Amino acid sequence: MIQVGIFGVTGYTGYELLKILQRHPHARVRFATSQTWAGQSLRRVFAGAPDLPLIAAADAPLEQVDLVFLCLPHAAAARTAVAALAAGANVIDLSADFRLKDAAVYAQWYGGPHPAPELLAEAVYGLTEFARDDLRQTRLVANPGCYTTTSLLALQPLMAAHLPIAGDVIIDAKSGVSGAGRAPSQTTHFVEVADNLAPYKIGRAHRHLPEMEQVIGWWHPSPPRLIFCPHLLPAPRGILANLYVPLANGLTEAHVRDLYQSTYAGEPFIDLLPAGELATLAHVTYTNRCAISLTVAGGTLIISAATDNLVKGAAGQAVQNMNVMAGFPETAGLI
Amino acid sequence: MIQVGIFGVTGYTGYELLKILQRHPHARVRFATSQTWAGQSLRRVFAGAPDLPLIAAADAPLEQVDLVFLCLPHAAAARTAVAALAAGANVIDLSADFRLKDAAVYAQWYGGPHPAPELLAEAVYGLTEFARDDLRQTRLVANPGCYTTTSLLALQPLMAAHLPIAGDVIIDAKSGVSGAGRAPSQTTHFVEVADNLAPYKIGRAHRHLPEMEQVIGWWHPSPPRLIFCPHLLPAPRGILANLYVPLANGLTEAHVRDLYQSTYAGEPFIDLLPAGELATLAHVTYTNRCAISLTVAGGTLIISAATDNLVKGAAGQAVQNMNVMAGFPETAGLI
Amino acid sequence: MIQVGIFGVTGYTGYELLKILQRHPHARVRFATSQTWAGQSLRRVFAGAPDLPLIAAADAPLEQVDLVFLCLPHAAAARTAVAALAAGANVIDLSADFRLKDAAVYAQWYGGPHPAPELLAEAVYGLTEFARDDLRQTRLVANPGCYTTTSLLALQPLMAAHLPIAGDVIIDAKSGVSGAGRAPSQTTHFVEVADNLAPYKIGRAHRHLPEMEQVIGWWHPSPPRLIFCPHLLPAPRGILANLYVPLANGLTEAHVRDLYQSTYAGEPFIDLLPAGELATLAHVTYTNRCAISLTVAGGTLIISAATDNLVKGAAGQAVQNMNVMAGFPETAGLI
Amino acid sequence: MIQVGIFGVTGYTGYELLKILQRHPHARVRFATSQTWAGQSLRRVFAGAPDLPLIAAADAPLEQVDLVFLCLPHAAAARTAVAALAAGANVIDLSADFRLKDAAVYAQWYGGPHPAPELLAEAVYGLTEFARDDLRQTRLVANPGCYTTTSLLALQPLMAAHLPIAGDVIIDAKSGVSGAGRAPSQTTHFVEVADNLAPYKIGRAHRHLPEMEQVIGWWHPSPPRLIFCPHLLPAPRGILANLYVPLANGLTEAHVRDLYQSTYAGEPFIDLLPAGELATLAHVTYTNRCAISLTVAGGTLIISAATDNLVKGAAGQAVQNMNVMAGFPETAGLI
Repeated sequence: MIQVGIFGVTGYTGYELLKILQRHPHARVRFATSQTWAGQSLRRVFAGAPDLPLIAAADAPLEQVDLVFLCLPHAAAARTAVAALAAGANVIDLSADFRLKDAAVYAQWYGGPHPAPELLAEAVYGLTEFARDDLRQTRLVANPGCYTTTSLLALQPLMAAHLPIAGDVIIDAKSGVSGAGRAPSQTTHFVEVADNLAPYKIGRAHRHLPEMEQVIGWWHPSPPRLIFCPHLLPAPRGILANLYVPLANGLTEAHVRDLYQSTYAGEPFIDLLPAGELATLAHVTYTNRCAISLTVAGGTLIISAATDNLVKGAAGQAVQNMNVMAGFPETAGLI
Repeated sequence: MIQVGIFGVTGYTGYELLKILQRHPHARVRFATSQTWAGQSLRRVFAGAPDLPLIAAADAPLEQVDLVFLCLPHAAAARTAVAALAAGANVIDLSADFRLKDAAVYAQWYGGPHPAPELLAEAVYGLTEFARDDLRQTRLVANPGCYTTTSLLALQPLMAAHLPIAGDVIIDAKSGVSGAGRAPSQTTHFVEVADNLAPYKIGRAHRHLPEMEQVIGWWHPSPPRLIFCPHLLPAPRGILANLYVPLANGLTEAHVRDLYQSTYAGEPFIDLLPAGELATLAHVTYTNRCAISLTVAGGTLIISAATDNLVKGAAGQAVQNMNVMAGFPETAGLI
Repeated sequence: MIQVGIFGVTGYTGYELLKILQRHPHARVRFATSQTWAGQSLRRVFAGAPDLPLIAAADAPLEQVDLVFLCLPHAAAARTAVAALAAGANVIDLSADFRLKDAAVYAQWYGGPHPAPELLAEAVYGLTEFARDDLRQTRLVANPGCYTTTSLLALQPLMAAHLPIAGDVIIDAKSGVSGAGRAPSQTTHFVEVADNLAPYKIGRAHRHLPEMEQVIGWWHPSPPRLIFCPHLLPAPRGILANLYVPLANGLTEAHVRDLYQSTYAGEPFIDLLPAGELATLAHVTYTNRCAISLTVAGGTLIISAATDNLVKGAAGQAVQNMNVMAGFPETAGLI
Repeated sequence: MIQVGIFGVTGYTGYELLKILQRHPHARVRFATSQTWAGQSLRRVFAGAPDLPLIAAADAPLEQVDLVFLCLPHAAAARTAVAALAAGANVIDLSADFRLKDAAVYAQWYGGPHPAPELLAEAVYGLTEFARDDLRQTRLVANPGCYTTTSLLALQPLMAAHLPIAGDVIIDAKSGVSGAGRAPSQTTHFVEVADNLAPYKIGRAHRHLPEMEQVIGWWHPSPPRLIFCPHLLPAPRGILANLYVPLANGLTEAHVRDLYQSTYAGEPFIDLLPAGELATLAHVTYTNRCAISLTVAGGTLIISAATDNLVKGAAGQAVQNMNVMAGFPETAGLI
């Protein structure tokens, strides 16, 4: 049994995490924080939520827990990580703070110096399927973002095979609105989202782009440039991405499929779809799975990949990482 | 040709009004105001909007217009009405400021003294179908609210016939989210609304209740008490209300239907549905119509009524009122 | 460990049931049938479903199971129940076949003679909270419908207290589209449902009405007449009903609340909300809970009640009933 | 004044066309056909529709009209076109029958021989902005499809400039559900579509692909190969497509923008968005406009284009074509 704390439980990710942990056979939530709602019950925040008392982050009893999850804004997360590690708790950070290894790149995309650059080297990038060995030995995990998890799971077998890519890789991705967070804004107003579909920060403008390019750079000696076009989708949750890869000559769908099958055979959360079945949100919402389908047309490989942004794209993968760190069955609490 | 101005064009109602007026054969929009966006174009506010310059309310050239529409918060609307009337412009106020005839009732429900009580007596309550004579002679119209328009059109024939009612009249109403306004809030966040249905301020707690009871008091010598239960519906626009009327003995569906047919015969915007067809949002969205169906079951008359909250429930009825005031065909710009 | 079979797994209810049972610690699904898809995998039917082989009902190995769930059309369900009982399996029937105790009433509402009237007397009406003693001793459960479960849980404390009711009780209910079943129809086409809200079979015309009136007749010596107005809601799942009860004089909200608190204290799946909090779909979707709120206004008690039509309104309650029948913890597999 | 008939008014396209024509100052609808609903009123088919009598196609008084619109399935459309032309009526065909110039290609994609190959040469491909001269002299128009209209308007300036393209052009497109037609199917069931996003027929598998490639072949001497990935979007209407064009070296966003500005200057229905504003469905739903935005990132030009599939993608463009054919103002009835 592991004792855990949640920092920032009143966002969509934090609450999803709580729901998963409450079903988890080997974890117990000892505290949950909220700056806005400290002193009140989680029932005030979410309809039907359990009657969980919320405390201020400053009052969190770090000494009582083995591990904390950080569902905090960036910068705040890094500062909390420092405190938690100092208190002897392991950290799984769901913010962006420890994803980028280069503090300069972080500063460029997140608008300020990194609050704890000394921790960047030891932080394990927690794309679970490709980080198990490191996870077992670390005290600090950078949990990947939702777009990133989806795109990286879609690309890894191709990148790791060092296949030559003939041009930019296009990622056309669509996210449910919970990916934009719970704070009200014009962008997330129901009337603006319903019956609409809106691209934003397309090209090379979104913060998840450098995170993706960093990771494929670990896998491929001359990684392709990425073009990333996210959209706000009129749905509460889920990410569907199409990745368009210009293939070098001679690469067939069968060849590609072999690569993916050998990479993902036995993976409990990767659902590699048979030829003719395409990944949709319905494959994955409310699950920790990533569905992947492969199509070759013309000179282009189309990888369609879907996850639930709140589960495999955030809270679910965080628990999956905890399971690996703690030596629990990797699927505990997740199926 | 009538010259008009719009105060508060950047809310959902104001923009709907602009769209109607731009198609209107006899009206020309001379100015449109926005406190937040003054100095910019309406294109900045709504995707695909016309390139209309927005001005501050204080800069509105009242002397250039014959009539102004007020799509402003309450209190601000009344103050603007005073200025516009002083400048010689007629006023159609889409806020609640001139709907309640009793300033004390206004103060109770709107949290402060009425800014212009001296105008209450002359303001015409603009439920067009029952206000035409008054509209032709007034300079100030209180445009009814969306829930109110729907409920009153549903009740008028019954009330005006002075039929005895055996108990409380229940109004179970559901509104599209545009009825909650364009300002972002937790309540209107897409993720909170989608896949949900939420009642609010039910019973005798909503501001539209005294407005409804005031008006049925004009029609019926001993009007029933109303129980009003609004809901936020996961749809952008439209109101559907079921009104449950406990009938005194002996009143048949045929009798009730006769009442409604004689009241609404020839009305261009009232769609009294034949027996067996029930009013839905699809009957009315994007139109100025009110669809009404009648069902008697047990001792209860069920009146189902639907309008588009932004059109017949706001901007459309405002233009309908303008048409009557100005002697234009009542349907001009509206079909 | 109990061995179970599912008849009709390819409807929304059947698939929901399968998902619950696959997480259940004490149940094992031995077979699942589908007339349309027999011989194929459930993956062909639902995106992301497990790779479960589907068999024809005629091939179901009844001798291998302790209990079967029937997610079949009415009439087919009764015939299957006969066979299953003959083979020694207990039956939880999610169709309407054993809900009405009077075969003549069944014939009137379901368009034909009852296929197994001899079983009506022994079938236990499985509104779990009020049927536990009977459930422990029966081999045949009639699982209540979704509208019915919601409405009856909302009414029971009031009815069981034998309080006088002053008129018709109005039930204004709104259902997510999964309640209409999975077979395609014009009514359930996305374009017809989205941005719409449509009442149907209102008054005293819906098949769930006699089921509700039967049950409140068990509880109240002179039960009120019900007026039932269902709507199709633009949401995939969930039911929200407002019940309007004309109170006899002198009944206060505090009195009513006491009744409900004493009835539902300790119930794991009934969420009686505190004063000021209203039941919404968000309280209950994807859970087996029923949220209930109480409001008194004028002379009317408003009971708002919400369930997930596929869970507490169907598959979840079926498992809850199984748990009671088999002596498992009542919440097993359901939280 | 032009007298028109509509074949197939009870689909989404046919009904949209009727609504546009009823507001049109120079057109009068003389008849409207429906195979399924002949003899009944259009009110039976669409909530709130006008009380229009529906006739069988065989009973259409072709001699009374100047022009017919065909909103029929393919093959049926061509046969009706032959009859209408023989009767002296001009034809605007909204089906696919006259879009492909090569009867063999038609046979390959539409599953049978072309019913009237002798008309293919004279049919004008009615992408209005690029067909005005031909439209003024023809009696037969092939109205382009919705995906096609959107994609071709997005590509034309680039193709017509004969710029070299460095690889496959990717079209990632998302369509509202009305694009799938009104016939019920599992695919268009509300519960399958809501909260989902589903790609289908991706790569080089969709019937609109050869139509697009045919047309860009008219414009560019060595046109790029297209990869077309359509999706079903949880929205009733609208198409948003991202087109990813691998640029040859040296082509800047400014250069591309100049091309588009010079092509589309003065076009009433093309909304070329300023840098930094991206095309969304909200720009275009319920209008005849196509919104286009341009972004260059890495070596890729991203053209985002949006239309309303029922308006500029079908009925609106059909009326626009009629306006050009008949010498009316091109925007008549459309703004």
